[in-house]
Amino acid sequence: MKHRFALSAAALLASGLAFVPAFAQDGPRARDLGVPFEGTPGPLNAITDVAGIEVGHHTIIRGEGELVVGEGPVRTGVTAVLPRGRASRGRVFAAWFTLNGNGEMTGTTWLRDRGILEGAVMITNTHSVGAVHEATIAWAQANLDAPDWSLPVVAETWDGFLNDINGFHVRQEHVFAALDSARAGPVAEGSVGGGTGMRTFGFKAGIGTSSRIVEAGGSEYTIGVLVQSNFGSRNLMTVAGVPVGREIPDLTPERGPFDAPPGDDEHAYGRDGSIIIVAATDAPLLPHQLNRFIRRTTLALGRVGSIASNGSGDIFIAFSTANEEAAHNEGGVAPLENLANNNINPLFEGVVQATEEAIVNAVVAGRDMVGVNGRRIYGLPHERLRDVLRRYNRLAEPE
Amino acid sequence: MKHRFALSAAALLASGLAFVPAFAQDGPRARDLGVPFEGTPGPLNAITDVAGIEVGHHTIIRGEGELVVGEGPVRTGVTAVLPRGRASRGRVFAAWFTLNGNGEMTGTTWLRDRGILEGAVMITNTHSVGAVHEATIAWAQANLDAPDWSLPVVAETWDGFLNDINGFHVRQEHVFAALDSARAGPVAEGSVGGGTGMRTFGFKAGIGTSSRIVEAGGSEYTIGVLVQSNFGSRNLMTVAGVPVGREIPDLTPERGPFDAPPGDDEHAYGRDGSIIIVAATDAPLLPHQLNRFIRRTTLALGRVGSIASNGSGDIFIAFSTANEEAAHNEGGVAPLENLANNNINPLFEGVVQATEEAIVNAVVAGRDMVGVNGRRIYGLPHERLRDVLRRYNRLAEPE
Amino acid sequence: MKHRFALSAAALLASGLAFVPAFAQDGPRARDLGVPFEGTPGPLNAITDVAGIEVGHHTIIRGEGELVVGEGPVRTGVTAVLPRGRASRGRVFAAWFTLNGNGEMTGTTWLRDRGILEGAVMITNTHSVGAVHEATIAWAQANLDAPDWSLPVVAETWDGFLNDINGFHVRQEHVFAALDSARAGPVAEGSVGGGTGMRTFGFKAGIGTSSRIVEAGGSEYTIGVLVQSNFGSRNLMTVAGVPVGREIPDLTPERGPFDAPPGDDEHAYGRDGSIIIVAATDAPLLPHQLNRFIRRTTLALGRVGSIASNGSGDIFIAFSTANEEAAHNEGGVAPLENLANNNINPLFEGVVQATEEAIVNAVVAGRDMVGVNGRRIYGLPHERLRDVLRRYNRLAEPE
Amino acid sequence: MKHRFALSAAALLASGLAFVPAFAQDGPRARDLGVPFEGTPGPLNAITDVAGIEVGHHTIIRGEGELVVGEGPVRTGVTAVLPRGRASRGRVFAAWFTLNGNGEMTGTTWLRDRGILEGAVMITNTHSVGAVHEATIAWAQANLDAPDWSLPVVAETWDGFLNDINGFHVRQEHVFAALDSARAGPVAEGSVGGGTGMRTFGFKAGIGTSSRIVEAGGSEYTIGVLVQSNFGSRNLMTVAGVPVGREIPDLTPERGPFDAPPGDDEHAYGRDGSIIIVAATDAPLLPHQLNRFIRRTTLALGRVGSIASNGSGDIFIAFSTANEEAAHNEGGVAPLENLANNNINPLFEGVVQATEEAIVNAVVAGRDMVGVNGRRIYGLPHERLRDVLRRYNRLAEPE
Repeated sequence: MKHRFALSAAALLASGLAFVPAFAQDGPRARDLGVPFEGTPGPLNAITDVAGIEVGHHTIIRGEGELVVGEGPVRTGVTAVLPRGRASRGRVFAAWFTLNGNGEMTGTTWLRDRGILEGAVMITNTHSVGAVHEATIAWAQANLDAPDWSLPVVAETWDGFLNDINGFHVRQEHVFAALDSARAGPVAEGSVGGGTGMRTFGFKAGIGTSSRIVEAGGSEYTIGVLVQSNFGSRNLMTVAGVPVGREIPDLTPERGPFDAPPGDDEHAYGRDGSIIIVAATDAPLLPHQLNRFIRRTTLALGRVGSIASNGSGDIFIAFSTANEEAAHNEGGVAPLENLANNNINPLFEGVVQATEEAIVNAVVAGRDMVGVNGRRIYGLPHERLRDVLRRYNRLAEPE
Repeated sequence: MKHRFALSAAALLASGLAFVPAFAQDGPRARDLGVPFEGTPGPLNAITDVAGIEVGHHTIIRGEGELVVGEGPVRTGVTAVLPRGRASRGRVFAAWFTLNGNGEMTGTTWLRDRGILEGAVMITNTHSVGAVHEATIAWAQANLDAPDWSLPVVAETWDGFLNDINGFHVRQEHVFAALDSARAGPVAEGSVGGGTGMRTFGFKAGIGTSSRIVEAGGSEYTIGVLVQSNFGSRNLMTVAGVPVGREIPDLTPERGPFDAPPGDDEHAYGRDGSIIIVAATDAPLLPHQLNRFIRRTTLALGRVGSIASNGSGDIFIAFSTANEEAAHNEGGVAPLENLANNNINPLFEGVVQATEEAIVNAVVAGRDMVGVNGRRIYGLPHERLRDVLRRYNRLAEPE
Repeated sequence: MKHRFALSAAALLASGLAFVPAFAQDGPRARDLGVPFEGTPGPLNAITDVAGIEVGHHTIIRGEGELVVGEGPVRTGVTAVLPRGRASRGRVFAAWFTLNGNGEMTGTTWLRDRGILEGAVMITNTHSVGAVHEATIAWAQANLDAPDWSLPVVAETWDGFLNDINGFHVRQEHVFAALDSARAGPVAEGSVGGGTGMRTFGFKAGIGTSSRIVEAGGSEYTIGVLVQSNFGSRNLMTVAGVPVGREIPDLTPERGPFDAPPGDDEHAYGRDGSIIIVAATDAPLLPHQLNRFIRRTTLALGRVGSIASNGSGDIFIAFSTANEEAAHNEGGVAPLENLANNNINPLFEGVVQATEEAIVNAVVAGRDMVGVNGRRIYGLPHERLRDVLRRYNRLAEPE
Repeated sequence: MKHRFALSAAALLASGLAFVPAFAQDGPRARDLGVPFEGTPGPLNAITDVAGIEVGHHTIIRGEGELVVGEGPVRTGVTAVLPRGRASRGRVFAAWFTLNGNGEMTGTTWLRDRGILEGAVMITNTHSVGAVHEATIAWAQANLDAPDWSLPVVAETWDGFLNDINGFHVRQEHVFAALDSARAGPVAEGSVGGGTGMRTFGFKAGIGTSSRIVEAGGSEYTIGVLVQSNFGSRNLMTVAGVPVGREIPDLTPERGPFDAPPGDDEHAYGRDGSIIIVAATDAPLLPHQLNRFIRRTTLALGRVGSIASNGSGDIFIAFSTANEEAAHNEGGVAPLENLANNNINPLFEGVVQATEEAIVNAVVAGRDMVGVNGRRIYGLPHERLRDVLRRYNRLAEPE
């Protein structure tokens, strides 16, 4: 089980040994490295700590060398977050927010008016929104009793630095694979699924996740967050309040041997990134409360240094798995439960904490990757991160 | 009882006799005159058909002749709509919408986030928002157990054509009077309360109200609407689809003997007006559904000919009196009820119908009024309205 | 030329002769039939009266008889509206609004933040959003110098009553065909392009268009509207204020011989529809003013009887072709022009008028169509419409 | 001149000498104490670095001892920010945003639709919104040629812990005094004007300001921020990424000798606070760009630790002093200038930086204050702040 593994990784690191995992998702997570976070995570420290949620990734890594549009190299994928699992139409009360809209999340107009998310939240690369949109409808028609369901939520970030994004490599079978593979339990992080070709603060990143357990109004609730993180320039990078990006200014993205000389496609190098945030809870929040809840994730972006740059598609979605009966109500009056606004602060604090940790996890899980034309993005060097935190008196020692 | 009176007025009118009421609010209402409307009104055909709602008006009419700022003439007032009556803090799930924002409704940012309206909806003239705001807090502190309540909802339209608006004549005692006089039962229309100095389509107007009974999801619900109507140029005026404004182009607002020659304050003559719409229901709608509900009142404005002109403050608020326990929940989880979105159409249709009728009622209730500097606004001539409707085959004969 | 043709059609109709056009788009338009409208249309009475706009339709009609998903029958298509023509990236200041969100329009988050629409507005059926999204990116990459452009605007309405919507019949070649065929000049209406399988008030409908010429602030401006109209139940249908739907209650959509017995898929019969509205002007409006402008189209929906039902995707987009330099500005400060808010009313009035006429045009252009399983939707009978208008004293005689 | 003074204060502090200013606004500012900030402030490091802006405070401090509602003690005031100075109607392109709406800012619906702020931004206590609203209209009528101006922007935070807020002590003369005293130049911080009775993170706070000079699109622009800061619990307090609040857990607000025993009015002690942020620039941003600009201040709140708690009224407004001609345009087409979105990032980064510093300045400027019933709020102990920063390797040494 991943969680135990992570603990031992922390122990290893505390002993001063370097840690070199075979796969991104098997490595230490941010708190294993001694990054201090507030609050109490759930057992998996993942969005799947919220009961019922299933996550599936399908990763497409194929080819290397010079870019030939339509052939590759390919560094992309699809991630599916299913609020009530892949066997259900999965209606949940939901809300969304956009901090900066240079991106796409389909399905939001109906989500806003209905207050309900139906089906999965799908995340992929910018140019695969169309393919994932069509395939998600086809999958729902084939797998769920949903003849009248037509408005999938598909979000994206841009991976064209490493991936042949104009090759449209995500096809129906990949989308079906992501959805069919969705499971509860540990969630792979880093260069997997929709996060495969992504970067953050100039380091390799992608998918990250975290969770919090909070007490609110006399009950215990779980908050889970999953991000596809692909934003930010190095100098802004802040971890636990420490200006890590300014302390590690090297290891920035590198042009490849097959790239044209500088000037031809500079947009790809300096391009602002984006972040998709999916936040879930089992607390009985109504749609207008979920709108408040998801808006707070902006505060987590502030903590890690984001300025929500012009080119960023910072689009967030939240849902509550409570009130299943009411969300599925097709007629008449349904009973539901509602947590008082006066008790909502722990949920606000928890979602800020979990989002901050999910973003740092996405970066910590990154490993060096070479993509189109031999371009390279480096993984964050874990020991250097620990050194910087130590210099700022912010390295958490293992308990 | 007003309703019965209105029926007999209709009978009188059908017999061809002219009708001259003693007081604006005692005259025939639009359907008494044979204006055809769709749907089924409640017994009072007023917002107070929604159980629990109390409405209070305080009207200030004082002085005549030349305008002396601070002295008069005064043609203004305050209207209070209390969702759960004047003895309650009156929390209700609520939402608001603005079609054109050239106006004021305070208290909306918290209403949006909390999903709850607390206390009254107050309506007055544009320059009395401040006085009503302060007085409403003072009244709540004195009359309700509400030490932590500070964000009243105060809306306005502009009555400076007839009223010494810069004289700030609405003071605390007037606000208290409106609140203390609030009652269930029939609602006076026309030149009363906040509507005292208002006009619509160039005719005297002010307060109007209407209601609808609808069946949705197997239950019967009531929808009530109250407007303070003060918008529109004559040529746009449409009643029951008939271009009444173009058929009655005369009787437009007149400059007074004490007015300066044209050119000095022309803004007052051509000034665009505004409309405040308060829509209520006892159907168990959540805040996000109330947002959908209130947005539909725009369609009623379309029916009567509005173009929501640049100078118009078209600001709308809706609330549901259902779920009293949940709206008052100060801690923990409360149960509530929710009507399925799939059953919401009758509520949408009903609120459009009731808003259309409330606006026409506001105009029908208007009577000639002379205000500052001797300016005059005419009441809509009822028999001419009937003549026009008859020519367009739209006059409803009494049942 | 279409315009002249329409005039002669009006003359024919005025003479009492029935009119039977060979093709939907060649028939009389609403004003040819004597429907009275306000305001002055442009020479084409089409969105293309706004200089620079090009419109392309691609219509797919194939097969008949029993529905075999993936084979047909097919009654669908794609419509492309290009603000600055198909040879340009076409950046224009833009804004959007949703009255009821049960539908999709992609690309809106960036449009909102940037204030700019880039590329075409694409309109298709609900399940072809994905295919059109991908194909529109591919077309832009192939035809425009737009390597960094990735967020197309794709809107939809649902044609599953007549069309094999789950067969995903719109493919890349159809999208390219719509874009490549875009031209200035007359715009075909009714069952063409994205509007092929659509209905309104229970009559066959689809694409409709109209325009207005207004004077504002001392200059003359053009407003153009194009709708893909697919909403509303018969009883609500209102034309020129006349309750046409209640006067023509027959000729409603019919089940086909290959349909299952009632009860199996009733959702398809009573399903609420949607409307996509594209409104354009050459007046120099800024994005926040375009937001005001597009919001007014709701008032036109009020005029024709809409209640914006729960199942409706009423999503609207507006753009201004003025300020080309500023909209294309990639760096530094650009000069632009701005029409004062105080002069904006004629634009508000014009867009309400043009939207109302475009919707009625969409219905008038409809002709009987038989689709999947032999289901049938009738075209509005023109002579009966004229009879009804005449009875309500609303039939406009030719000038 | 304040700026030079501040520099010498920094020099004093660097020398290890304690610093005891006579007046709050004369003390060291955050960067004088060695708090590290990013970016380059303007000469005053105040909102008034944006040319044309004038700020006026009126402070009301009167009485001590037991609370007698209507008599005092009084610890409150009014602050006026005039975008183009007190002699002008001051129209500026503007936008607003609310992170959490438990507060008030009047005038926002028209500001949103018009895209223009007219007149001052007024800030006071929660229960004085009404008085300030009325007085601001009266002042404009008396001092500006503004007969048609009626919709002032009045914002507030809650000072009822120290102030007799239900005594409504802010009257017309205080509002006039604030407006009449507005000047360019240094801006007093801390317990002045509307900020008089405010607290942040459990320390005395109030008004804070800061500025940044940035280069964008080849030109240099100034960004200025002024906050009325009154939010947050101690444990969240973060300065320069350092958990200062957890390191200084003592010196929290204290109940007074005249207070009732605990339990009677606990709401006052734990009450969440609020923050009003006013952000200005001379960069030629359009209203929709100013909406993006102001939304970024949320990221600064994230940096200082805010979770935007349920009780917080976090309401922000931005304006641009550029394009004076266009903002004042009353008719026809006006020329204006617009900075490309592609160049906007430095403005985003600058407003985050300036907001962060303005908040910390508001706290640094706080001094111990005793209010109603003898309650006490402590000023942040400067030397302890420096000690904490030093321990986290974040104390900036003087240059």
